[in-house]
Amino acid sequence: MYEIGVVYRNIPRAEAAVADRLGGFGSATVHEAMGRVGLLKPYLRPIHAGAQLAGTAVTVLLQPGDNWMLHVAAELIRPGDVVVAAVTSESTDGFFGDLLATSFQARGARALVIDGGCRDVKALGQMGFPVWSRAVSARGTVKATLGSVNIPVVCAGTLVHPGDVIVADDDGVVCVPRAVAAQTLEAAAKREANEADKRAKLAAGVLGLDMYKMREPLAAAGLRYIDSRED
Amino acid sequence: MYEIGVVYRNIPRAEAAVADRLGGFGSATVHEAMGRVGLLKPYLRPIHAGAQLAGTAVTVLLQPGDNWMLHVAAELIRPGDVVVAAVTSESTDGFFGDLLATSFQARGARALVIDGGCRDVKALGQMGFPVWSRAVSARGTVKATLGSVNIPVVCAGTLVHPGDVIVADDDGVVCVPRAVAAQTLEAAAKREANEADKRAKLAAGVLGLDMYKMREPLAAAGLRYIDSRED
Amino acid sequence: MYEIGVVYRNIPRAEAAVADRLGGFGSATVHEAMGRVGLLKPYLRPIHAGAQLAGTAVTVLLQPGDNWMLHVAAELIRPGDVVVAAVTSESTDGFFGDLLATSFQARGARALVIDGGCRDVKALGQMGFPVWSRAVSARGTVKATLGSVNIPVVCAGTLVHPGDVIVADDDGVVCVPRAVAAQTLEAAAKREANEADKRAKLAAGVLGLDMYKMREPLAAAGLRYIDSRED
Amino acid sequence: MYEIGVVYRNIPRAEAAVADRLGGFGSATVHEAMGRVGLLKPYLRPIHAGAQLAGTAVTVLLQPGDNWMLHVAAELIRPGDVVVAAVTSESTDGFFGDLLATSFQARGARALVIDGGCRDVKALGQMGFPVWSRAVSARGTVKATLGSVNIPVVCAGTLVHPGDVIVADDDGVVCVPRAVAAQTLEAAAKREANEADKRAKLAAGVLGLDMYKMREPLAAAGLRYIDSRED
Amino acid sequence: MYEIGVVYRNIPRAEAAVADRLGGFGSATVHEAMGRVGLLKPYLRPIHAGAQLAGTAVTVLLQPGDNWMLHVAAELIRPGDVVVAAVTSESTDGFFGDLLATSFQARGARALVIDGGCRDVKALGQMGFPVWSRAVSARGTVKATLGSVNIPVVCAGTLVHPGDVIVADDDGVVCVPRAVAAQTLEAAAKREANEADKRAKLAAGVLGLDMYKMREPLAAAGLRYIDSRED
Amino acid sequence: MYEIGVVYRNIPRAEAAVADRLGGFGSATVHEAMGRVGLLKPYLRPIHAGAQLAGTAVTVLLQPGDNWMLHVAAELIRPGDVVVAAVTSESTDGFFGDLLATSFQARGARALVIDGGCRDVKALGQMGFPVWSRAVSARGTVKATLGSVNIPVVCAGTLVHPGDVIVADDDGVVCVPRAVAAQTLEAAAKREANEADKRAKLAAGVLGLDMYKMREPLAAAGLRYIDSRED
Repeated sequence: MYEIGVVYRNIPRAEAAVADRLGGFGSATVHEAMGRVGLLKPYLRPIHAGAQLAGTAVTVLLQPGDNWMLHVAAELIRPGDVVVAAVTSESTDGFFGDLLATSFQARGARALVIDGGCRDVKALGQMGFPVWSRAVSARGTVKATLGSVNIPVVCAGTLVHPGDVIVADDDGVVCVPRAVAAQTLEAAAKREANEADKRAKLAAGVLGLDMYKMREPLAAAGLRYIDSRED
Repeated sequence: MYEIGVVYRNIPRAEAAVADRLGGFGSATVHEAMGRVGLLKPYLRPIHAGAQLAGTAVTVLLQPGDNWMLHVAAELIRPGDVVVAAVTSESTDGFFGDLLATSFQARGARALVIDGGCRDVKALGQMGFPVWSRAVSARGTVKATLGSVNIPVVCAGTLVHPGDVIVADDDGVVCVPRAVAAQTLEAAAKREANEADKRAKLAAGVLGLDMYKMREPLAAAGLRYIDSRED
Repeated sequence: MYEIGVVYRNIPRAEAAVADRLGGFGSATVHEAMGRVGLLKPYLRPIHAGAQLAGTAVTVLLQPGDNWMLHVAAELIRPGDVVVAAVTSESTDGFFGDLLATSFQARGARALVIDGGCRDVKALGQMGFPVWSRAVSARGTVKATLGSVNIPVVCAGTLVHPGDVIVADDDGVVCVPRAVAAQTLEAAAKREANEADKRAKLAAGVLGLDMYKMREPLAAAGLRYIDSRED
Repeated sequence: MYEIGVVYRNIPRAEAAVADRLGGFGSATVHEAMGRVGLLKPYLRPIHAGAQLAGTAVTVLLQPGDNWMLHVAAELIRPGDVVVAAVTSESTDGFFGDLLATSFQARGARALVIDGGCRDVKALGQMGFPVWSRAVSARGTVKATLGSVNIPVVCAGTLVHPGDVIVADDDGVVCVPRAVAAQTLEAAAKREANEADKRAKLAAGVLGLDMYKMREPLAAAGLRYIDSRED
Repeated sequence: MYEIGVVYRNIPRAEAAVADRLGGFGSATVHEAMGRVGLLKPYLRPIHAGAQLAGTAVTVLLQPGDNWMLHVAAELIRPGDVVVAAVTSESTDGFFGDLLATSFQARGARALVIDGGCRDVKALGQMGFPVWSRAVSARGTVKATLGSVNIPVVCAGTLVHPGDVIVADDDGVVCVPRAVAAQTLEAAAKREANEADKRAKLAAGVLGLDMYKMREPLAAAGLRYIDSRED
Repeated sequence: MYEIGVVYRNIPRAEAAVADRLGGFGSATVHEAMGRVGLLKPYLRPIHAGAQLAGTAVTVLLQPGDNWMLHVAAELIRPGDVVVAAVTSESTDGFFGDLLATSFQARGARALVIDGGCRDVKALGQMGFPVWSRAVSARGTVKATLGSVNIPVVCAGTLVHPGDVIVADDDGVVCVPRAVAAQTLEAAAKREANEADKRAKLAAGVLGLDMYKMREPLAAAGLRYIDSRED
């Protein structure tokens, strides 16, 4: 599926304003708004807790133990982008550290999502450059074999096209395809509007069983209530 | 071993005062006090560091990718309970988030222990609702298939009966069967009393080798000391 | 490869001043300075973020579920040491807790690196005793079977001799053999000197592509740039 | 949950004839007949393909890296038993090899199910002694720490009581509690009777969609059919 | 990225003759011919060794623990197809067994590739229906939640479109996009033509170092040869 | 610990006759004879069951996704060698296939042990070239970055020096250091002599409890026997 050795320039990107507002909702709400798809596998974790953001994807395909293409990608970054890096086979090596982060940040990148390892995590925290990765590893990489930039990649089990919206927070990372970003935003807003009301009811002691009218379908499915005997 | 589609009400619970005091000792001491059994597998981790508590178990058996029974369980929660959720096959999905947490907290639950994923972790931290889970995942779940509530479940490799005491902290989660809660409390208290004295001696430079009288059994087992040659 | 049941005393150690200065560079820089070798596998993680240190290795070979040899090792610790514990088969048990930490700290140990589990993590944080481990687990261990102290061990995939320098921080753990500690220090210093300059350039927007003169080798390798069509 | 250091003799066992007939149905059918519960986790695999059997459980609780209790269990084996061994923490060590197998076979055991490792697999194949294990490992174990025999154990995530029926084949291992063995047998027989008829229809090209009358519920759930455009 | 609840009919398929010939080359050769891309992750393993085949993909998106869509897919199968099933979150459940295999085989399917579990493996071997799966598990699934059929899916980390060519053997599973199937076939044929000659030379004792002219680039990269001293 | 970019020629090897005889005992016996050390981690599995052999190690250090050094190693192979390949970071790529096997076999190699992936497994079976690997993967590798040949390597957690004896069979892989090969052979022979007698006794129904005189130490450790009540 992958073209190797190509770099696409001038990719179309989802609208910045849409991306920004999707970031406000967070990954769980956006993932639900998309019909419960688009989540990258949960082994991707933030290297520091607390960041919540969205941006447009610049995609990178790396070779195992080789970070050459991250340098190529730096030139393609525009303010508001999130770099999404896949690797052609599983690797925990530290493809990314504070020097690349300095460069990415200078180019306007908001974050990195990488299906590999990252290092210099203390420095990255101090710089305020968020990373979601599968591992932290001090092990460095070579610059020897071509991959690609801005081709569609599968990162942590999910297809990401360049220009898609990436939403990331402590719950994980979601990819919203560019074509559905606007409608997803609308669905997310609708969903969140409902949640405030539900939260208030639940906080007041109303049961989800009643609020969601679950008692009837549960009974129809055969759920039986039994009183425990003291044993 | 499991009955599917049943909910037990009015389960007997371990004494609240005993549970509370067990919580004060923490999981490592309680686990030792039980004779080194009862620990849930260490892949269960707190979503936020620092909580230490105990409570009486309300147990839930979930189906993979389905959190219906957590809603059923909410009604059964009494103040001081800890909800313990097992899944019939391995899953990292986000079965639990801030809405359910709001409901559980309103009902008096102290925490959730789940052999699956959890989401909305930032909000859960802000609410002060502790969760021990095998994963964090934004992926939501359906409400389609029955499980059970308040049956004995195997959670993270350990059998938990409804009403047992659950002790949880940064070191992990221990289940103390209701029938042995009082005697475990006594053993834990005894154990901890000893520890303060030991700690002081070790801090003063006394060796465990001497304090625990290990030199003789080590020699009997054949341990040999050799002086290194400078190489 | 292992001798079982032996304890080497008076091991030669790398120079303390060299170890201290290596600690200042951190694991990623030291690992690069060694020619990209010496890193322990990245599944070893600090139990608390933020520590950065180095010390000379006291090595321990443990049997699964048995921490007897850690007590034996305590007597061999000298100020400035880092205890490095391997296990003869994979185990996540909690071999180490606050009592042993009290003893190790009293003897002058700076940290523990263990290819197994650790417990009492909250207390260890309060004591300021850093640990890098493969797991956190409340499960305790027995004292029944001999291992060894101060023999060469393979810990998390890397060979560690007693007296080697161990460098550890949030990025992981590196072993610098005693014989190459001084030259590694020199290489690390040289490497770091370069980095400040590079960082400034990258922060100013200079691309790694230009700074590292990558454009020509990338072209020689066949990299092609393509302008995206708006799709 | 576990008593350590006890051996129960003269345990009640499920009826041999029932166990034998359950073995004939295999693990998948029996697991369905139980209401889709009772399966041990699928990481347990047969060391050789092709065996299919059932027997009554003699349970063993082992300590990590220690097979002492398997020797104790040998004396408790009666013809038709299957030994089920759990370990108090995860271990892949080779707890069991051809000498123990010789002893177990001489006592009438039909198989071993072990949540740990096994060795001498070629010899076990030649002897015709089937084993389901989590690993194969040449690593041997010590005889130093007590566990228990014939207490309820959690093996590969499932609770097994002594005397329960264990059904094992290439698809995995199922535990049928003694109390429900007879009714499970009946349910399994009923299920299998249906299957022959279904198989014939499907082989003739009838679709499950029609045979199981799924078209209507699928449409009700909103399934839409779309004709692909040639792209 | 996924549409949920849709079934595409009359998908375009790669040419049958091209698929058949790709099958003759096997996954390793085809993977190289594609430029070293297209391989599904190696955790997918054949349930029985020895099968080697290719076919056109009918794709299925399953929900965890739910095999409803496999029944829907059966109707879409045409002779020469290989069914490729992805799951929206990781699951080892037994989604597929001998009844579905009977149906698939009757419809002309050549194999199943599933990023989940499979059961009835002995029967599947007797039927001669090959399966590549991530697990074997007797655990059954429900029919409650919609997925989709014949949408693009990510299976074991690789994007598969309906109609693509799937090549599978003991080395793994490769997806060849329909659009590049013919050119991949050509490249594979060229590659294999070269291999026979190489194999003969290597068998005669010629070194790869000489045959591939590696000595010069190795020396240029700095490789040094040293004679061991007898130690 | 590793020198990168060096190849040692004319390494000393353990005596061929000793290696051959160690191979006859198999990995479990040799591992016990060494005092229960030297086993490579059990995730290394034979790609085909049934081989049992030993040979002298030619060691290789590979870079991730790069098999260049296997070609360099071919020239160093002498009849009776077993090639042992480590990788500087974890990788499942297919570093080795039938062409390299043809070359290795022509040079007299008996087998490959690789802490990475292997491919062409069907062809390797037909050629009779045994491989122990951590994975099977069709994914190929590049030839771009130097590693080393015949330096000490850590393979699957165990240190292997060039010239050591490697013993491998269905139970796993053991490394016997050259310096202790002869004494290990003697210990293995002694151990096996005992086993035949033990096996006969156990087959006759004698219990290990009695044969190994375990009843007394078990009682001393506190083991209690209890008669089950029919429940």
